[in-house]
Amino acid sequence: MSDLPKRIHISEEGPREGFQFEKGAIATARKVALIDALSHTGIDQIQIVSFVNPKAVPGMADAEDVVHGITPNTEVAYTALWLNDKGFERALREKRLTLKGTIQLAASEKFLMRNQNRNLAQQLAGQHAIVDMYKAAGVPVERGSIMAAFGCNFEGDVPVARVVSLVGQILDVAKEHGVKLTYITLADTMAWATPLAIKRVVGALRQRWPDVDFALHLHDTRGMAIANAYAGLEMGVTRFDSSVAGLGGCPFAGHKGAAGNVCTEDLVFMCNEIGIETGIDLDALIECAKLAEDVVGHPLPGSVMKGGGLQQYRQ
Amino acid sequence: MSDLPKRIHISEEGPREGFQFEKGAIATARKVALIDALSHTGIDQIQIVSFVNPKAVPGMADAEDVVHGITPNTEVAYTALWLNDKGFERALREKRLTLKGTIQLAASEKFLMRNQNRNLAQQLAGQHAIVDMYKAAGVPVERGSIMAAFGCNFEGDVPVARVVSLVGQILDVAKEHGVKLTYITLADTMAWATPLAIKRVVGALRQRWPDVDFALHLHDTRGMAIANAYAGLEMGVTRFDSSVAGLGGCPFAGHKGAAGNVCTEDLVFMCNEIGIETGIDLDALIECAKLAEDVVGHPLPGSVMKGGGLQQYRQ
Repeated sequence: MSDLPKRIHISEEGPREGFQFEKGAIATARKVALIDALSHTGIDQIQIVSFVNPKAVPGMADAEDVVHGITPNTEVAYTALWLNDKGFERALREKRLTLKGTIQLAASEKFLMRNQNRNLAQQLAGQHAIVDMYKAAGVPVERGSIMAAFGCNFEGDVPVARVVSLVGQILDVAKEHGVKLTYITLADTMAWATPLAIKRVVGALRQRWPDVDFALHLHDTRGMAIANAYAGLEMGVTRFDSSVAGLGGCPFAGHKGAAGNVCTEDLVFMCNEIGIETGIDLDALIECAKLAEDVVGHPLPGSVMKGGGLQQYRQ
Repeated sequence: MSDLPKRIHISEEGPREGFQFEKGAIATARKVALIDALSHTGIDQIQIVSFVNPKAVPGMADAEDVVHGITPNTEVAYTALWLNDKGFERALREKRLTLKGTIQLAASEKFLMRNQNRNLAQQLAGQHAIVDMYKAAGVPVERGSIMAAFGCNFEGDVPVARVVSLVGQILDVAKEHGVKLTYITLADTMAWATPLAIKRVVGALRQRWPDVDFALHLHDTRGMAIANAYAGLEMGVTRFDSSVAGLGGCPFAGHKGAAGNVCTEDLVFMCNEIGIETGIDLDALIECAKLAEDVVGHPLPGSVMKGGGLQQYRQ
C-alpha cells in the first residue's frame, strides 16, 4: 500500500477509442461537443482522433473535420493516433494537435503479423526509421509502448521476461537515437491482465529500471480494468489511459466483445476516494459520460455515471 | 500479495438479489430454471429467495413456489433471507432450505432507523432474542454480519473503529449465548468501499482477531466491486457473496442506480487466472449468466459473460 502515488496523470482516450469503434455514424458536431465538454473537466490530455484508412475505420473518416471543429482549450493537449507514415503525415498537418512520437513494440508476434504484417524483429528494426522520421519532423519522442503486454488472443500468455526484454529494447532504441523517454506504456490490448499480473510485470520492470515511469492502458473486456488500475497504483504507476463512460473497444482484437479502456470517471472516483489527486472534476466528468451515451445513442458501461459520487452524501 | 488464499468460498446471491430487485414480473418457472442451472456449476451455496412482505417486494411473492419448484442438488445448500420473525417462520417451514442464523448489526444508525426503525442499541439488544429464537428452532447461528460497513448514503463515512467495535459486539453476543461463529460478513450495502478501505478495515479486524474469518458482500454501484474483492483476497479474505451476471441491487439503499453484488463469473474468472480455486466451472457459470439475462429480459452488467474466458486461447 505504501507505493500509492499522491497524484496521477490521466490521458483521456474516449473520443478516439469510441468513435473508431462505434458502429453507427456519429455526426462530426456531436464528436466535437463531447471533446469540448471533456476539455473543461480538468483533463489536460485528450486523444481525439486517429488518422487511419477511412475504408477500414469509417468512424474516423472525418478526423480532420473533428480537429478543425473543436474550440481548443490552451490547457489541454489534443493528441492523435496513427498507424503508418501516411497517417503521420495527415497528423503533421494539424497544428492544433500535440504530436507525440512513440517507440512501439508488441509482446505477441502473432498479433503483430496479423495486424501489421511484421514479425518482432521487423517491428524492432522499423522503430529506428520511425524515430528518425519523428526527429526530422520535429516531433518529440517521449513514450515507449508495448502492445499485448499481458497476453494475446492469438498467442496466449506473455511471460514477464518477454516484457522485461522488450522494455530493454525500447530503451536501447531511445538511447541509440539520443532521445529521452518520459514513460513506457504497457497496453493490455486484449484484456488478459489481472491485478496479480499487473503487480508481477510492473514489479519486475520497476526493480530493473527504478527510474523509468510506466503507464497502463487497460481494456475492460473481462471486467478487470479498475482492479488492474488499483494494482498499478499500488505499484506506484502514475500514468493511465482511460476512456470516459468506458467508450470504445479494440477493432484489432479479433473479438466482438472487446470493451473500451478503464472508465475515466470510475478511475477518478476511486482516486478521489483514496486520496490520489487527478486534477479532474468528477461531477463535470460524469456529465461528459452522460453526454457520451447520448452521442453514441446506447448505454455505456461506466458505473459512477449511473451510481453517482459520494460527496453528495457527506455533510 | 502473500496473503492471497489458495481457495475461496462463494455464496451465490443472484437469484435472491435479482428477483427481489427486478421491476417486471418473472415467471416462477424461469426463476427455478436459473437456480437449477446454477446448482450444476459447482457452486455449493445459493441464496434463492427472501421471505419478505409481498406488498413491499412483489418479486418475492412466489418465494414458497420457487422453493418447491427447484430440483435440489444434494451438494448445494439452498439458503434464504428474512428480515423479521414472520419471515423466519415462513423459512422454517421449508425443509429444502438450509437455514443459517445471523447476528446482524449495522454501522449506520440512520440506515437502521430508516429501514428497521431501530437505533444501534435497540438492534444490538434485539440480537439476544434472535439468537434465542434460532436456538429454540434448532437453526445454527454461524454468521455475524455488519450492514453498511464501509459507508452509508444516509450517514456518510464509517470510521474503521466503529466496525471494530461492532465486530466486538457481535462476538460478545455469540459468546454470551455459547454459539461459535464461522465468519463475519462485512456488507458494503451502499457501495462506499474502495480497495484501500477494504484493506484498512479488514486489516484492522484481522490484527485484532487473527482467528476470525471475514466475508465480503460487495455491491458494484460505483464499479469498485471487483477491485474491492481483489483487495479482500490480498488481505486473506476467503468468503465472498456474489451475484451471477451482476444480478440485483439493494431495494433499501434509497438509490435507483444501486447495482447488484460483485459479478460471480467475473470473480471466478479473476480467481482462476491468479490461481485461487473456487470449485466452480467458469464455462457453466457463463451459460448461467446468459440465462439470467434471458430470464430478466434485459442486459446485465457482467463482463466475462460478454468478453469470454481465456482458456479458449491457450493451447
